[in-house]
Amino acid sequence: MIGRIISLTSDFGLRDPYVAEMKAVILKICPNATIVDTSHEIEKFNVRMGAYVLACASHYFPKNTIHVAVVDPEVGTKRRPIVIDAKTTFFIGPDNGVLALAAKNQGVQHVYEITNRKLMLPRISNTFHGRDIFAPAAAHLANGILPADFGPEIDDIASPSFSKTIKEKDKLVGEVLYTDDFGNIITNFNKKELRLIGMKEEFEVELGKRKAKLRLYKTYAEAKTHELLASIGSHDFLEISVNQADAAKVFKVKIGDKVTLHYS
Amino acid sequence: MIGRIISLTSDFGLRDPYVAEMKAVILKICPNATIVDTSHEIEKFNVRMGAYVLACASHYFPKNTIHVAVVDPEVGTKRRPIVIDAKTTFFIGPDNGVLALAAKNQGVQHVYEITNRKLMLPRISNTFHGRDIFAPAAAHLANGILPADFGPEIDDIASPSFSKTIKEKDKLVGEVLYTDDFGNIITNFNKKELRLIGMKEEFEVELGKRKAKLRLYKTYAEAKTHELLASIGSHDFLEISVNQADAAKVFKVKIGDKVTLHYS
Amino acid sequence: MIGRIISLTSDFGLRDPYVAEMKAVILKICPNATIVDTSHEIEKFNVRMGAYVLACASHYFPKNTIHVAVVDPEVGTKRRPIVIDAKTTFFIGPDNGVLALAAKNQGVQHVYEITNRKLMLPRISNTFHGRDIFAPAAAHLANGILPADFGPEIDDIASPSFSKTIKEKDKLVGEVLYTDDFGNIITNFNKKELRLIGMKEEFEVELGKRKAKLRLYKTYAEAKTHELLASIGSHDFLEISVNQADAAKVFKVKIGDKVTLHYS
Repeated sequence: MIGRIISLTSDFGLRDPYVAEMKAVILKICPNATIVDTSHEIEKFNVRMGAYVLACASHYFPKNTIHVAVVDPEVGTKRRPIVIDAKTTFFIGPDNGVLALAAKNQGVQHVYEITNRKLMLPRISNTFHGRDIFAPAAAHLANGILPADFGPEIDDIASPSFSKTIKEKDKLVGEVLYTDDFGNIITNFNKKELRLIGMKEEFEVELGKRKAKLRLYKTYAEAKTHELLASIGSHDFLEISVNQADAAKVFKVKIGDKVTLHYS
Repeated sequence: MIGRIISLTSDFGLRDPYVAEMKAVILKICPNATIVDTSHEIEKFNVRMGAYVLACASHYFPKNTIHVAVVDPEVGTKRRPIVIDAKTTFFIGPDNGVLALAAKNQGVQHVYEITNRKLMLPRISNTFHGRDIFAPAAAHLANGILPADFGPEIDDIASPSFSKTIKEKDKLVGEVLYTDDFGNIITNFNKKELRLIGMKEEFEVELGKRKAKLRLYKTYAEAKTHELLASIGSHDFLEISVNQADAAKVFKVKIGDKVTLHYS
Repeated sequence: MIGRIISLTSDFGLRDPYVAEMKAVILKICPNATIVDTSHEIEKFNVRMGAYVLACASHYFPKNTIHVAVVDPEVGTKRRPIVIDAKTTFFIGPDNGVLALAAKNQGVQHVYEITNRKLMLPRISNTFHGRDIFAPAAAHLANGILPADFGPEIDDIASPSFSKTIKEKDKLVGEVLYTDDFGNIITNFNKKELRLIGMKEEFEVELGKRKAKLRLYKTYAEAKTHELLASIGSHDFLEISVNQADAAKVFKVKIGDKVTLHYS
């Protein structure tokens, strides 16, 4: 078990001591842990964005990775701290949906509420369970403590509110899943779905207050500099981009905004 | 000694090659070091902010951790490079106060000026002692070199200028220790002190140009969305927050600003 | 070979899951890799800036380090993915110049085009070769796969377009190599060249729309607060700074801008 990987996802940013405190707690309990930052730049309190980033990244980690995600606007209230046993991957964090998307992709086996005080720090603050409950839980799990040792099994978990795409006459209605640091707009239209509707290489998109004609390319660089383009991104969703510029700024969109695809 | 943890704190940011150069130097000398970033987003030249962040984080690290902190506006001048032996923790950096708060919390045993050229890089620049002096010192210490091998023992170190709280009639005057990335305003009123003055659950605070009535909550989420609140933060200081918003922006305050608590 | 160091340089930023996906892929193939972030804050698509940062940092890493750099505006097109064997250091990335400066400093021995599909992820996206080609290549190399196993040897590589300095009557014309997070302006005038022209301690610089008289100091702190100064930086280039302020903002310059030194 030595050397298990622990990934950290949060909305803490990298300026404050908070992420380092979590790492310090982990290394104190499990000195051989390999800690990988997934992202600490999740928008403050944006559980959905945390869920999306964790789902993307967790897909690529080795077996037995322990993913800790702390986007936790209700820290200190009745929302439960949980451990999810998802076959050969584990997820630790608040039960508010931040873990659910990634865990479901891996296949949830069992979920446990973390109640065992012996597996937490001796003093538990009301505002920083990342350090006081989730980091120690990850380190103990890496040391070989069983998920069932953390507390009672529970049989429901909160899910983040991702909407499904809706097929209407000649159009597909969906939403913006994510906008990345390059300004690529990642929609919730996946590759399979687009194949099913027989989408052509040219189509029209409605996004924010703008309508635009787009062409589906294989790579950004096939388009001209600053040309609007669509592509199937590295996670198999339709992305709307501007070659070497920021599409999210051009369309003025944010996560959760409606996208309509006119495809014939 | 193998596998000793080295933490890094600086005002270098993460864009430039500087932090990586420090890590490269450490790994060249001590390939088994586990390096943890505490923060590289300390405000440029803000020694006090570095001292606060290091003091918070260092509290949670395992025994034998070596903390390197480089907020060093006077690099290349007569300010001394030092190693502090603080019982089972070590601190390395410029003698300008950035190490002092954390080191005193751990208990300073001995302080040594770093003068031994054999424990530095062969070429020492005038502007980057983090890479040329402090990183090699940390790596050598992790390899088992003794603190006394770095140079002569000295008996005074610089301290950062944190002010004490002042109790006046029915009020407590203090200052803003830190404002975090969530906008929480961390004051220098600690839990013990507040208990001593018998602070009530509701009180008035004067901060910047604003006066406001506050209620002391246990968690952010007990307050309504965007409600102003006070809480005892995860480091036992009184924090002033706005639930799910940025209190530092609301009050327009920065580190070092005066805070007055009217408590009865 | 176990425990080889892999450094990562990119323009991905730290908000998105991309860097974590690369690390996950590396750790899946080579669980003992030590991964060091050089910088992920290279300006989007700025190959030259990536080349400069990698060249600075790679100088300090131990032998056998594998450097992966992904600033890759033409990902998915015909630009080649390459492995450079540079004596005791290896470089992996797109053949667009981002690796060349650092590799030439180390001494290029052989260059191979990466064509061996067995050493890539099973599915290769058109937009993220960092994860699908370069990260697995680095991990396989760390595991002991030979550079020649990745594909055919090639005998030319792209170079970034750094200009040389030009000596005219009583003046030296060069350019801004880099502006760092402190606002230091790093020029392409190196220490040796300045010694050759017999530069004095006081001289005049033309930069952007401004002319200014400067004094060469050994350290920033020798100058008065907010005084303009020149120094030989930690990489032996002439730097123009403002003590405790941002020179790049004062002069309004960016990477590639012309600098003229009037030296007598």
